[in-house]
Amino acid sequence: MPSATLTLYELAGADSELRFSPYCWKIRMALAHKGLEAKCIPWHFTEKEQIAFSGQGCVPVLIDDGEIISDSWRIAMHLEERFPGKPSLFGSRNAIPLAAFVNNWADSVLVSAIARIILLDVYGQVHEKDRDYFRSSREARFGATLESVVAHRPTHLVDLRRALAPLRQTLKAQDFLAGDAPAYADYCVFGMFMWARCSSTAALLDEGDPVFAWRERLLDTFDGLARFAPSLQS
Amino acid sequence: MPSATLTLYELAGADSELRFSPYCWKIRMALAHKGLEAKCIPWHFTEKEQIAFSGQGCVPVLIDDGEIISDSWRIAMHLEERFPGKPSLFGSRNAIPLAAFVNNWADSVLVSAIARIILLDVYGQVHEKDRDYFRSSREARFGATLESVVAHRPTHLVDLRRALAPLRQTLKAQDFLAGDAPAYADYCVFGMFMWARCSSTAALLDEGDPVFAWRERLLDTFDGLARFAPSLQS
Repeated sequence: MPSATLTLYELAGADSELRFSPYCWKIRMALAHKGLEAKCIPWHFTEKEQIAFSGQGCVPVLIDDGEIISDSWRIAMHLEERFPGKPSLFGSRNAIPLAAFVNNWADSVLVSAIARIILLDVYGQVHEKDRDYFRSSREARFGATLESVVAHRPTHLVDLRRALAPLRQTLKAQDFLAGDAPAYADYCVFGMFMWARCSSTAALLDEGDPVFAWRERLLDTFDGLARFAPSLQS
Repeated sequence: MPSATLTLYELAGADSELRFSPYCWKIRMALAHKGLEAKCIPWHFTEKEQIAFSGQGCVPVLIDDGEIISDSWRIAMHLEERFPGKPSLFGSRNAIPLAAFVNNWADSVLVSAIARIILLDVYGQVHEKDRDYFRSSREARFGATLESVVAHRPTHLVDLRRALAPLRQTLKAQDFLAGDAPAYADYCVFGMFMWARCSSTAALLDEGDPVFAWRERLLDTFDGLARFAPSLQS
């Protein structure tokens, strides 16, 4: 049974049960979608040597029967190809290029918009030994101190909600990005909301927002896998 | 032959050969994709009575053998269902919900970002009898005069190029949004660029941008249908 051989390196917080990486959440949901179980290994930002075998320094990293795959998109593609008999993450080959656009939208627009609200909260959850690394790497990326990045949270919340317009418009007409049932495109976006849920008490969405209802549906998917995961909002 | 019965109402400018509506361009490309020909009727913003039969006041409006369809997305869905033997606009049913997201991204993010560059140029191309309507309706929508909307074009150009990040990222890895060949998701976004090309001399993209190369490929699609259409950049 190939599923027994899966090992996933996942970002963990000071509380090693807290798994807040949006990219790791994409893969958590993808594995559940495929009905696969992986042995999860908690990993911290500065434990670069632990994943040096993957040739790079970020998680998620998947080991599948000796094969090493990093980068969440490549891991999803690997799972899709390796387990064709399991429920498809895309529904059809023609949906993959469009799911890539959704993924890139999440990774550019949403990461940035949500970071401007929760970045200091995330800092509060990372392992003590990771804090200097987290601060210096993120401050270099944003060109500002963590405190400055989130200094105008109410404004950034308005910006985030505006940035969600295409998602909101889509979810007015369909239950999930992928249609009637969730698939990888949904997990790409949902991972960003799990990042916020696990590391911050900030309320990103109004209850009346179609995006709120969609997030609720995904929290309940796979018997509440995401809802019952340790978080600052559980 | 059902294609012989298609009639399309299309927005026209003062020069009635100039067809600059992004939504009409989506359908022009969709018809070409399906290998269908429609009798195109030029229409101006204030000729509401001419399309009153459609129960609303915007183009495109398609009449297919007596059936009336308005709204570009609904027209695309109609063409897909009505002509299943012709090349698919989506490739598979699973790709449709994701194409809807791309469409909504174009209609929210891109319309707004491009308008802030070309809106006054568009005004310069509309029929004289449409000018008051165009000015008052657009000024109400933007809450500013046409001149104010485009007052900081260099800044808005930077904003547009930043907003294109998910498209750019996607086109680094694949030739078209839909994958190896263009499909409706591409036309949804491309329509926005045709809006600019037809009504403005503004250069929206750098030549080194993967989005530039993608736009070139689409200009050449269907024997240069878009490239050779009357425009301010042809």
